[in-house]
Amino acid sequence: MAVYTDVGDEELKAFVAGYDIGDVVSCKGIAEGVENSNYLLGTESGNYILTLYEKRVSPADLPFFIGLMEHLAAQGIACPTPVKDRQGVALRQLCGRPAALVTFLEGMWPRRILPHHCAGLGGAMGAMHQAGASFAMTRPNNLSVSGWRVLFEACRPRTHEVKAGLAEELETELRSLEAAWPAGLPIGVIHADLFPDNVFFRGDQVSGLIDFYFACTDFLAYDLAVCLNAWCFEVDGSFNVTKARLMVAAYRAVRPIGPDELAALPVLARGSALRFLLTRLYDRLNHPEGALVKPKDPLEYLQKLRFHRSVTRPGDYGIE
Amino acid sequence: MAVYTDVGDEELKAFVAGYDIGDVVSCKGIAEGVENSNYLLGTESGNYILTLYEKRVSPADLPFFIGLMEHLAAQGIACPTPVKDRQGVALRQLCGRPAALVTFLEGMWPRRILPHHCAGLGGAMGAMHQAGASFAMTRPNNLSVSGWRVLFEACRPRTHEVKAGLAEELETELRSLEAAWPAGLPIGVIHADLFPDNVFFRGDQVSGLIDFYFACTDFLAYDLAVCLNAWCFEVDGSFNVTKARLMVAAYRAVRPIGPDELAALPVLARGSALRFLLTRLYDRLNHPEGALVKPKDPLEYLQKLRFHRSVTRPGDYGIE
Repeated sequence: MAVYTDVGDEELKAFVAGYDIGDVVSCKGIAEGVENSNYLLGTESGNYILTLYEKRVSPADLPFFIGLMEHLAAQGIACPTPVKDRQGVALRQLCGRPAALVTFLEGMWPRRILPHHCAGLGGAMGAMHQAGASFAMTRPNNLSVSGWRVLFEACRPRTHEVKAGLAEELETELRSLEAAWPAGLPIGVIHADLFPDNVFFRGDQVSGLIDFYFACTDFLAYDLAVCLNAWCFEVDGSFNVTKARLMVAAYRAVRPIGPDELAALPVLARGSALRFLLTRLYDRLNHPEGALVKPKDPLEYLQKLRFHRSVTRPGDYGIE
Repeated sequence: MAVYTDVGDEELKAFVAGYDIGDVVSCKGIAEGVENSNYLLGTESGNYILTLYEKRVSPADLPFFIGLMEHLAAQGIACPTPVKDRQGVALRQLCGRPAALVTFLEGMWPRRILPHHCAGLGGAMGAMHQAGASFAMTRPNNLSVSGWRVLFEACRPRTHEVKAGLAEELETELRSLEAAWPAGLPIGVIHADLFPDNVFFRGDQVSGLIDFYFACTDFLAYDLAVCLNAWCFEVDGSFNVTKARLMVAAYRAVRPIGPDELAALPVLARGSALRFLLTRLYDRLNHPEGALVKPKDPLEYLQKLRFHRSVTRPGDYGIE
């Protein structure tokens, strides 16, 4: 939950006057999204999401994110579409922060993941990867293997506060991944954070994908690996092969997965688990006093990481 | 900001199916309101606010709050109107908590208070008091003078952590107010928490009052005293007599203020300042680790309390 910047009514009125969307009718801070301040803005022409980009999002990356949403929407992917002001500009300033207005997406994210959600996710992810193939901009994934080392070193001296022996386990894991990290897999635009709260459904159907603020250029199969972690484990830590199978089958129906990508899934899944473990660990150790966001449990991802270490072939995920 | 209970999509669907308002289109937790969990719910028939009542609201009081909103709305006061389900019931259960759906109110609360806002507030408060006169239910104000003593005793041992000497000043103040607290003033339903974030405006006009969860039966003039504190001080602590004069004049145009009420305003304003000082002090001292709500500054109200102690007659507020 997060609203970091309180937007005044007068500032908002002046901001909205720059668009051709009618007057402000209502504006409510949304208790969702960890990185930015989000408002549900009602105007005479409908509902929008107003986002103020806070310090965790680099302003230099914003043209990539805005451009990507515009590109995907133009390709028919259901995602928030940046609204341009009367001058044709989508990325503006509000309360001293970069700000953008995007279209409102109907639907709700699933709190309890059922197998059909995983199928829906797989199809939507495949379509997004296909649509992204014609997107011209690139952005490196700074939360991939080289970034993990930096994060780990920042956490290492205090890692024992979270769990005894964790630093040693992470050091071994990181060395192993640095050595085993694949090369030469198909690359493209990935979402990189397709957790359930970023995938909206209406009824059984995906109604859209949101929150592209970790999107980057990386192995397409890495997005699948993120989703194996985020969608296919049960609350008790067990891995649900039915969900994984449905997700991958629906993905493949849109974009074929090569044998090299399939073979790399276990190591990509280990890497993805380490990525979320490390960012959660960092946030836990650096949680500011009085922060409005409750840090998530890093150890959930230690359990997932250990599971992936035990995987010897994609068949262990239910995928052939 | 507050969303304490995360409502699942399946639970929500089942809940909404009990109403004649169409299917759920979207549902977003709102980062407003301190006491309850609030969601902006979009359905096929429009927007609603879904409130789950958390532990600070006593379930026994809910029929009073719901009944009051129904009564005021029926009298033409712009406020959230409880929506009844197919069985005619407004107060239901969701996620193990009492829950109600109310109509969505357009408008925004003013971040920077201008004099015309105070005039709008005064008129709306007067109309609410008049409309409340025919409301049959009553609820004692448990945050009036007898409640302050309880709060103070709970805080006293640790009050010095906030400010040296504060316990002594509060003890003296409380004794003085217990002795001087008026009796026999006109009584009725008051809002008791009419801070700017509970008063919505569209353009220059009040579009509605929200958050009736401190409403109770008490001196009508006590509501005015709360608003002198909440609306008429500048950020630098100075008292703005223009704002007070406009607020009271607009109120009087709807409901006359008796000379006894006018004479009691300084002591009521002191009491109201002490009430918010004590609840903020309590929240500051009992702020749970990892809480999502940032406690407000109790000392802002110490400054206001001292100002009111210096007031000898209503004329010092700009009111004659």
